Amino acid sequence: MPQDRVPHVVVVGAGFGGLEAARGLAGAPVRVTVVDRRNHYLFQPLLYQVATAALSPADIAYPIRSILRRQRNADVVLAEVVGIDPARREVALRDGATLSYDTLVVASGARHAYFGHEDWETRAPGLKNLEDALEIRRRILLAYEEADRAARPERRKSLLTFAIVGGGPTGVELAGAIAEIARQVLVDDFRHIDPRETRVVLVEAGPRILPSYAPKSSENASDELRRLGVEVRTGEPVTSVDDTGLVVGGQHLEAGTVLWAAGVAASRIGSFLGAPVDKNGRVVVQPDLTAPGHPDIFVIGDLALFTHQGGQPLPGVSPVAMQQGRHVARAIRERLAGRPAPPFRYFDKGSMAVVGRSAAVAEVLGLKLRGFPAWLAWCALHIFYLIGFRNRFIVMFEWAWAYVSYQRGARLITGNLEAPRKR
Amino acid sequence: MPQDRVPHVVVVGAGFGGLEAARGLAGAPVRVTVVDRRNHYLFQPLLYQVATAALSPADIAYPIRSILRRQRNADVVLAEVVGIDPARREVALRDGATLSYDTLVVASGARHAYFGHEDWETRAPGLKNLEDALEIRRRILLAYEEADRAARPERRKSLLTFAIVGGGPTGVELAGAIAEIARQVLVDDFRHIDPRETRVVLVEAGPRILPSYAPKSSENASDELRRLGVEVRTGEPVTSVDDTGLVVGGQHLEAGTVLWAAGVAASRIGSFLGAPVDKNGRVVVQPDLTAPGHPDIFVIGDLALFTHQGGQPLPGVSPVAMQQGRHVARAIRERLAGRPAPPFRYFDKGSMAVVGRSAAVAEVLGLKLRGFPAWLAWCALHIFYLIGFRNRFIVMFEWAWAYVSYQRGARLITGNLEAPRKR
Repeated sequence: MPQDRVPHVVVVGAGFGGLEAARGLAGAPVRVTVVDRRNHYLFQPLLYQVATAALSPADIAYPIRSILRRQRNADVVLAEVVGIDPARREVALRDGATLSYDTLVVASGARHAYFGHEDWETRAPGLKNLEDALEIRRRILLAYEEADRAARPERRKSLLTFAIVGGGPTGVELAGAIAEIARQVLVDDFRHIDPRETRVVLVEAGPRILPSYAPKSSENASDELRRLGVEVRTGEPVTSVDDTGLVVGGQHLEAGTVLWAAGVAASRIGSFLGAPVDKNGRVVVQPDLTAPGHPDIFVIGDLALFTHQGGQPLPGVSPVAMQQGRHVARAIRERLAGRPAPPFRYFDKGSMAVVGRSAAVAEVLGLKLRGFPAWLAWCALHIFYLIGFRNRFIVMFEWAWAYVSYQRGARLITGNLEAPRKR
Repeated sequence: MPQDRVPHVVVVGAGFGGLEAARGLAGAPVRVTVVDRRNHYLFQPLLYQVATAALSPADIAYPIRSILRRQRNADVVLAEVVGIDPARREVALRDGATLSYDTLVVASGARHAYFGHEDWETRAPGLKNLEDALEIRRRILLAYEEADRAARPERRKSLLTFAIVGGGPTGVELAGAIAEIARQVLVDDFRHIDPRETRVVLVEAGPRILPSYAPKSSENASDELRRLGVEVRTGEPVTSVDDTGLVVGGQHLEAGTVLWAAGVAASRIGSFLGAPVDKNGRVVVQPDLTAPGHPDIFVIGDLALFTHQGGQPLPGVSPVAMQQGRHVARAIRERLAGRPAPPFRYFDKGSMAVVGRSAAVAEVLGLKLRGFPAWLAWCALHIFYLIGFRNRFIVMFEWAWAYVSYQRGARLITGNLEAPRKR
């Protein structure tokens, strides 16, 4: 069969979902092209550890080309998708080129969102990619450097206050990690401040943190955070973010560093399809994960809003994206064999979030774990899901080393030296 | 003795020289303040490995505060020095603050220089800090991504041509590493190009590469580079760098990526002293390493031009800086004891440069090594001089892993996605 007659599957986005779809098509009678504007796959569940100086970017990233190196029917294109023309079955790239597809898999994910307050972003950065993580790391470490030199006690107090907005897993993980840095890592390193005076405030608008978990797990996580010295404030929405901090529950909280872990908005690529989207921009997909009216376009992962009959929409977590990616690969194979694509069913294996050293919550097969067992399960699972021997080995070493030394391996302030910290 | 009566030693720059000076004063009856505009000490000899995706920034950097944590008489200030007033014995910082000193140690190093062609910098970046290294890494990896998508063969050829200007150790190391990436690391990762077609050209204006080594070592290094496929061109000065490449020896060489490893200029902090400087801005120091006319100011490392009577000026390498740093600490202690500072004497233990896998040249105690023995000595020495167990362990692991897998652990393109590559 000549190359140009082989059906072409274009996968947009090489995250958990897109990569599973591409790998699931290995050996299938199709050409697969994976398009991403990054050259690397990113293991997002550990991104907060880059933001808190525990890991280096390269430890949680892997070149997409290397992942697909041995899959002879797969090609990788580093490019940004700027349009989709479903009528002509074409994807437009930023450099003016186009890719024709027979089947399109859109898996371009989501970013953090500020619900109409996009001007908050410079004051309260969010965490979605490596650049975000390095910026957050820079702000956390610079806050201590400035506090050490600050003459006025009020300024010092403000610089040593960190507010994290959003009580989901990312917010919980950031709050726990900053509290640990303050009390364990930096404690002997400054001559003019005591890092233990750091105040970490986790702000959640809803009635409890980790709202997608069982109430018991939320309680466990709050307990563990408080043990680390984190103030957990729930039921208080943030109404403003300004140069000196934020307004939460009607009160102004002075905070030198504000981090955003509150909202997500789906990638704008979803809007190119002309299909119905929810308020966060997620494409409301059919039971077989295709976009309504476009049987040749699958939408998966954080970009898709999928609901089992009579159920809640599935959350934007990696197991959902991975299962959807594998499902799409199967569906494409079925269709090639002349059979209809089956409906998608999600199998929930559980979820876990880490708070700190020996502290986590996990819900696995109906069990609700906390503390050291949950933390150990979290560590093992995350090592298992990393790609490649090198990354697994280095992350394992970094964790073991941090566990015994109370240090963090990536305490670097990099980037623009001239860029002032916000006041 | 009250704190304010203790003599204050201010050290500007926490590189090899500055840190040795500060650590050499542990337990001495002085206060030491180390000022650097970075929060980390950088192990520059391995910087080219960050630029060529072998190591991560955190593997060769270490927080200055952590290095001096247990030295109770030492303080660290993250700030940029913008002036020195020798009459008032004050150092001015960018944020408007000043530091008074009794003794000043200036160890602020050097940067790459373009000999009056500063406009070449954007086209041919140099390698002196972590941001430089990540920019070079980005350019090298992006060149392959673009070549893979380039339609015209001439464009592809240009993108796969890398010119390195300057045949010193950094130029040799960069050229060897890029040749290895092309022939070993990327070889199976692209579908539309063969990375083995990469052309690496090392350009040296002088008659031989590694001019500070014995002629035999230069020859050995050239042999090893040619074995890796590098074109070594000597005796041909670069007269122009433009958007499509460079002019070398009167001929235009089309090169998508040009890297600069040719010139150094001393830190501008040297000019604040009003002391005589050479054409590269280095302060011509006295036999005891003080600046002429300023017995309370020591200048060391790459910023200092020191010549033994009747000899050649010492090169800007780390052993010189470290020995000078230790000398300054001893000199300050001698003076505190009422004795004059002794003159500095450099003990040359030898030098080594690496070309690639199992390929290096070394001159140790009169011996001239090459190939595997030189490479092994190079590896051992660089692990030994890294700071901290974590960095040593990770670098050793990365090297071992790269040696058996032919892969590189940090193949990430990060930074501004919108920034176009130069054409």
